[in-house]
Amino acid sequence: MRKCYFDHVATTPILPEVLESMMPYFKEEFGNPLSVYDLGINARNAIEKAREQVASLINVKPSTIIFTSSGAESNNLAIRGIALARQNQGKHIIVSKVEHHSILNSARVLEKSGFVVTYLPVDKYGLVDPDTLKKSITKETILISITHASSEIGTIEPIKELSAIAKEHNIIFHADGVATTGNISVDIKDLGVDLYSMAAHQFYGPKGAGALYVKEGIRIVPLIYGGIQEGGRRAGTENVPAIVGMGKAAEIAKNELSHRIEHTKKLRDRIIKEVLKIPNVYLTGHPDNRLPHHASFVVEFIEGEAMLLMLAMKGIYAASGSACSSRALKSSPVLLSLGISPALAQGSIVFSLGKDNSEDDVDYFLQEFPQIVMRLREMSPFAKGWGRGEEGEKCYTG
Amino acid sequence: MRKCYFDHVATTPILPEVLESMMPYFKEEFGNPLSVYDLGINARNAIEKAREQVASLINVKPSTIIFTSSGAESNNLAIRGIALARQNQGKHIIVSKVEHHSILNSARVLEKSGFVVTYLPVDKYGLVDPDTLKKSITKETILISITHASSEIGTIEPIKELSAIAKEHNIIFHADGVATTGNISVDIKDLGVDLYSMAAHQFYGPKGAGALYVKEGIRIVPLIYGGIQEGGRRAGTENVPAIVGMGKAAEIAKNELSHRIEHTKKLRDRIIKEVLKIPNVYLTGHPDNRLPHHASFVVEFIEGEAMLLMLAMKGIYAASGSACSSRALKSSPVLLSLGISPALAQGSIVFSLGKDNSEDDVDYFLQEFPQIVMRLREMSPFAKGWGRGEEGEKCYTG
Repeated sequence: MRKCYFDHVATTPILPEVLESMMPYFKEEFGNPLSVYDLGINARNAIEKAREQVASLINVKPSTIIFTSSGAESNNLAIRGIALARQNQGKHIIVSKVEHHSILNSARVLEKSGFVVTYLPVDKYGLVDPDTLKKSITKETILISITHASSEIGTIEPIKELSAIAKEHNIIFHADGVATTGNISVDIKDLGVDLYSMAAHQFYGPKGAGALYVKEGIRIVPLIYGGIQEGGRRAGTENVPAIVGMGKAAEIAKNELSHRIEHTKKLRDRIIKEVLKIPNVYLTGHPDNRLPHHASFVVEFIEGEAMLLMLAMKGIYAASGSACSSRALKSSPVLLSLGISPALAQGSIVFSLGKDNSEDDVDYFLQEFPQIVMRLREMSPFAKGWGRGEEGEKCYTG
Repeated sequence: MRKCYFDHVATTPILPEVLESMMPYFKEEFGNPLSVYDLGINARNAIEKAREQVASLINVKPSTIIFTSSGAESNNLAIRGIALARQNQGKHIIVSKVEHHSILNSARVLEKSGFVVTYLPVDKYGLVDPDTLKKSITKETILISITHASSEIGTIEPIKELSAIAKEHNIIFHADGVATTGNISVDIKDLGVDLYSMAAHQFYGPKGAGALYVKEGIRIVPLIYGGIQEGGRRAGTENVPAIVGMGKAAEIAKNELSHRIEHTKKLRDRIIKEVLKIPNVYLTGHPDNRLPHHASFVVEFIEGEAMLLMLAMKGIYAASGSACSSRALKSSPVLLSLGISPALAQGSIVFSLGKDNSEDDVDYFLQEFPQIVMRLREMSPFAKGWGRGEEGEKCYTG
């Protein structure tokens, strides 16, 4: 059976060159980077090389990169690290309603300790409106955090415009770049953000390595205290192989980026065009301004979970909502924030393409997917009107 | 040149079988453990198998193990996670003066937010006295954290006795087991602790994987918020290969433990016996009740750093103080707490043996080390009295 991995927002396979770059650090170069002798120095140098590679991918200085263990850790460090460092200046934080759980839940924790959090609404495409952001700023606002793109709906936010507003008001701006780094061109100087989160396993690097860009001169309170690693901003023996792999993956991403974008966008556009021919299927997120490898839909009358399992039986791997919520079996708050009804949100399905996907994969997918939708609708108690000329839910035609 | 890696407290090389167990999760089994399809299920099952292996090494139920990214993260999660969960019951915490930086610095952070921390003194061997612990308990005490063994001085603390005192007073007891897990026999039921920290790279597993045992029924506040990973207690896409490697390393450690202990202890005892024949060299830590692979000394008139570099030039790798402080170039607070003078503490050197070290390694080491000490003393401005019949510092003869 053909295998089509269309779930690159959940995680990406590691590139062979990336894994190869990691291997020496699992073997002969196993030293602790803090050791003063050659084994330690080699490990330390490897980390610094990776720091340069990651910095180069987003056009910043290496010294501004803090390595972490995941995108979630980077997001937690950004939100709570800035909130705690600046709480004397104010206790108001602004995030959007289409943030990842690691942002939303970090914000909720701060609420419990006396912070006020504004959750910015989005339009039906998931876009944050700069005017709404402006109006939500108070004298107490110390931090704004908006995702660069949502992995659930693919929409790319107008970060440059939003960060400019923050700058006017002297407010720190963080963007969650976990879904974007290595998938679209990211130039921090152009985006104008103060902090930016990344995760290696989202761009063909290993799990266990994330990074946070922190603009020079911005103080951040650590999440993990201990030794002097990462300039005292993130303690713990460094995961040298994973960091090396993240660096290599960043280097390759930089070189291949335009090709990756062109390749996946072409396949993705075909998927969107064809899937939307299935009745009562709607695109979620922005039609154009979205991650190039990302196609997301809500399919009326059926559940995402059921689609995922039927697709997997055909060797097609996809997601329903974010990976982090897929096992939680709740309606995605991101989809609800677009104005999609809870019932329709249950029919969420996300296809995210990768560099190794082919036209043949898409052919196969397009042959199987409409049949799966049909079969599930035949079984669905919610679809009784469907197929007899009646119309489905009208609430959402985004 | 012969290479003698005598720095297993800094980090251990990964066993080939461990690395082999990890490889499928870097390759074909790269799925996100939260994905609902087979690739996700396989990754999830691999994590659960590793959880069983780690749990088995310390004789607990798998559900009590939380995977983290490092020993430092486990220690931070333990200290701050319990402090925040129990702050309504009291704001007093007790730690010892021979704790790792990740414990001491976590405690200091809590002090800044209104907690009171008692730093228990130790005797000249680094032992915490149960009576002193008893006396330091107040009505406000919610947490006691004592390291199972210090990686700097090797001393194994009387955890069973100490945890019994905590239990009598209904206080949570955490032990930092980073230096002990996989190196001595650890039975949580026997030790009677409520929380226990571990790090895979301390027992021939990979960097990037740690774990925290949390007794059933004990609530802990997370350090990293986000998705539902690790039962909602530690968010972030799991580092599947590293977790799998930690499980395998735990399984092998369990099987090989008695052999490892016997093998390294024999080599270690020879090192202690011979090194103490060098004039003005003193053992640090307890003479008997210490990690079996661990020999630590202070060498009068010279600096640890210089010894490390000279040893490395001969292919011998050792540590001076903890890996985390070795580059900080400060006198080790652990050594000072034993009553060693700051000047003498500068001459700290730690040799920690591993399963692959041989009698030949020790022969070579014993041939080189006394010469290095001699040569450095000849160069040292502090050693002017030495070698001319005068005696060195008398303050410490532990």
